[in-house]
Amino acid sequence: MANQAPPSGSAPRSRVAALLNASGPLENVLVKGWVRTVRDQKGFAFLEINDGSCLKNLQVIAEGGEGPYETAVSLTTGCSVQVSGRLAASPGKGQDWELKAGEILLIGDCPESFPLQKKRHSDEFLRTIAHLRPRTNKFGALFRIRSSMALAVHNFFADRGFVYIQTPIITGSDCEGAGEMFTLTTQAKGETLAPEKDFFGKPAYLTVSGQLEAEMYALALGAVYTFGPTFRAENSNTSRHAAEFWMIEPEAAFADLNDNMALGEELVRHLASHALEKCSQDVDLFARFVDKTLSQTLDNIINNDFVRMTYTEAVEALQKSDRKFQYQPMWGKDLQTEHERYITEEYCKKPVIVYDYPASIKPFYMRMNPDGKTVAAMDVLVPRIGEIIGGSQREERLDMLQARIKEMGLSEEEYWWYLDSRRFGTAPHSGFGMGFERVLMMVTGVSNIRDVIPFPRTPGNVEF
Amino acid sequence: MANQAPPSGSAPRSRVAALLNASGPLENVLVKGWVRTVRDQKGFAFLEINDGSCLKNLQVIAEGGEGPYETAVSLTTGCSVQVSGRLAASPGKGQDWELKAGEILLIGDCPESFPLQKKRHSDEFLRTIAHLRPRTNKFGALFRIRSSMALAVHNFFADRGFVYIQTPIITGSDCEGAGEMFTLTTQAKGETLAPEKDFFGKPAYLTVSGQLEAEMYALALGAVYTFGPTFRAENSNTSRHAAEFWMIEPEAAFADLNDNMALGEELVRHLASHALEKCSQDVDLFARFVDKTLSQTLDNIINNDFVRMTYTEAVEALQKSDRKFQYQPMWGKDLQTEHERYITEEYCKKPVIVYDYPASIKPFYMRMNPDGKTVAAMDVLVPRIGEIIGGSQREERLDMLQARIKEMGLSEEEYWWYLDSRRFGTAPHSGFGMGFERVLMMVTGVSNIRDVIPFPRTPGNVEF
Repeated sequence: MANQAPPSGSAPRSRVAALLNASGPLENVLVKGWVRTVRDQKGFAFLEINDGSCLKNLQVIAEGGEGPYETAVSLTTGCSVQVSGRLAASPGKGQDWELKAGEILLIGDCPESFPLQKKRHSDEFLRTIAHLRPRTNKFGALFRIRSSMALAVHNFFADRGFVYIQTPIITGSDCEGAGEMFTLTTQAKGETLAPEKDFFGKPAYLTVSGQLEAEMYALALGAVYTFGPTFRAENSNTSRHAAEFWMIEPEAAFADLNDNMALGEELVRHLASHALEKCSQDVDLFARFVDKTLSQTLDNIINNDFVRMTYTEAVEALQKSDRKFQYQPMWGKDLQTEHERYITEEYCKKPVIVYDYPASIKPFYMRMNPDGKTVAAMDVLVPRIGEIIGGSQREERLDMLQARIKEMGLSEEEYWWYLDSRRFGTAPHSGFGMGFERVLMMVTGVSNIRDVIPFPRTPGNVEF
Repeated sequence: MANQAPPSGSAPRSRVAALLNASGPLENVLVKGWVRTVRDQKGFAFLEINDGSCLKNLQVIAEGGEGPYETAVSLTTGCSVQVSGRLAASPGKGQDWELKAGEILLIGDCPESFPLQKKRHSDEFLRTIAHLRPRTNKFGALFRIRSSMALAVHNFFADRGFVYIQTPIITGSDCEGAGEMFTLTTQAKGETLAPEKDFFGKPAYLTVSGQLEAEMYALALGAVYTFGPTFRAENSNTSRHAAEFWMIEPEAAFADLNDNMALGEELVRHLASHALEKCSQDVDLFARFVDKTLSQTLDNIINNDFVRMTYTEAVEALQKSDRKFQYQPMWGKDLQTEHERYITEEYCKKPVIVYDYPASIKPFYMRMNPDGKTVAAMDVLVPRIGEIIGGSQREERLDMLQARIKEMGLSEEEYWWYLDSRRFGTAPHSGFGMGFERVLMMVTGVSNIRDVIPFPRTPGNVEF
């Protein structure tokens, strides 16, 4: 492995993304990155250099018998290098600018055992080298998009006066009254689990949602959101579930179900637009190689008002359809993914918000409707993804909430603090949860959640 | 508890922060928020309304025997209300605008058992009602600052081309080779811990750092950062430690220790400026009531170049001082908080970056210096806080890294993927970790970490 210090007095380093957008030729350019390909043209050579700042490579031309050319043809895919030279208009197709190398230095070499030789690799294979896959075009693009989308989420809420809060990851309560959770312990292998003797003196879990805590903050700061990791210990191996994923949970005081639906629609549309406009080069890769219908899906989200229909209407539509479903649609049963996708993809052919679900299939904190049967819940469904948002107006009436807690067999004492918020200056409020990975699958067309998370965690998989 | 629907056809709701910055009087204003105080002046009344959008309250004047006045004097601290009326110039001191109430509606009442009656409460007491404390001036301000600072972090890195990545929270490896970690399990109370039969089929922990994974991404995307929760299962009850806290970890390829120090200095200075400039109203509360030296501390950070001194120089300075330390400073021993604070507060009287620490007290991944004794580590120390950043140039040379792993008794097999990054196109790279809570303590003067986290987790404390 070679490792040479850069020459002193050299120019400051430029990123490839900036050079490819240069407004004119430049002298004394210094670039550092990784070699994607080497083409020896006998007497001169082309190098493609990528430094992760964008999808496109910088083309480097190495001429001259002894100097740059000789070094260039000794390089292999995956080497790290630094190249200094002159940025000039490129006569070739595919790029406006190219770098005429004055000097090429090898920084770190790369043996032929490097798994990312120039050919296509399966997603399955690339998951086994999750530490290297961001060096491919596809995953480099994916994780630049992930970053940009995360910032778009923050800016969306900041622009609307929402305060970002970090709700606890370690929790003593189970938000949903359901959901399988990971337990934390500081006990050692072979010991008997005894929460009362453990770090917190009682059972402690990884959170499945920051909602209950976010509600406390919404009722103080007016409008808040969380954006952090959440966990499920579900032992299921599907392309849509991971044990660890990131969730966005806004919560707003003095907001009812209509406000909540409007916010959800605005957010989904904003994120689809952001992807198309601000990540166009990277998203284009997915539109060309991963999902040919991607642009159409995103345009559909951006250009249509979301249909709003009640759960009851949705069940009727499902029952009237001549589609054979694996699960028979029936009022009082939860909608399955097949049902949600039928509603949004075939029945409405656009994004849909289904609201007013049966109370019996929803958690205790959702607000009871005047009919006494349904709650003010809502799910946002989009084509190709299904549910991307689930939320509700929260039950702000103390007596109703206590009744629901009792009805569901939960402990009122455990929720003393949650109930306090209804005792002291309660107010109508609403919120929802949006899975960040679902958003990424929506804007890239990637169909497996393992491929939108840097190091995914699923049953049996905790490598890296 | 009253709960009345808003009148139909009412004006859209305004936030208090917007009204207090109004450019002129406004008709048909609608505000919703919580009553902070009621003053009955016989015939008219003043209400102070806060909706969490800013520290300041909106003053409401309620006149008229039957209507607004009568409702106003029936209200108590903590009630939620909606007030419609006319925004007019205020003749009184302390505010430019006040709301002349046309109608006041009680939304949620608040009994006298509300713990936040108008008086000062101790921080200790407020921790026992962490679900209500954001309704106080101090904690409302604190968590608006926390939100704004988090966005400042994201924007700082986005402006410099760093890609935001979410490294895993659940990990199979222990980054530091030290540090007490929480273990995850799906086993039940009373069962014997057996990782091989558990969810992941082997031991899984909560991460103490995303660094090793971030390095993999820096060597693909060029420059990245994490911003997420990290964990320590240390059974210590101090004002500076929590079991769960948020950390920012940038990592940049082709960056050496000098680049790393420059980035850290720039970040700390940027965040201090951001707090003073963008959170001035909220930060001012802390400068007046929490820490009288706060402005001076922040000005010191903003206006001075950070001193740079080697660890060896720092130990010499400590040994020469006539200060009695609890721990004797000695080359080869880690600097204690008392040492760090002496160096930055008394010896230099400004922020300091100490670098080139003995290899023997630092983790395996730090780059060995040519002297064979020290590594290219650096800590940023600021007055009143001590260490706010700890980082290093990473060991990018495969053979050196393997030797260090062996020397420290770690398993090379466990780090196969980490070593791969040095096998294939390795490159010099650097990064650091900055505790987000330390930053918040720096910009508010708050001295207990429990008071800058919404729901803090410490030994025995997992309430809410």
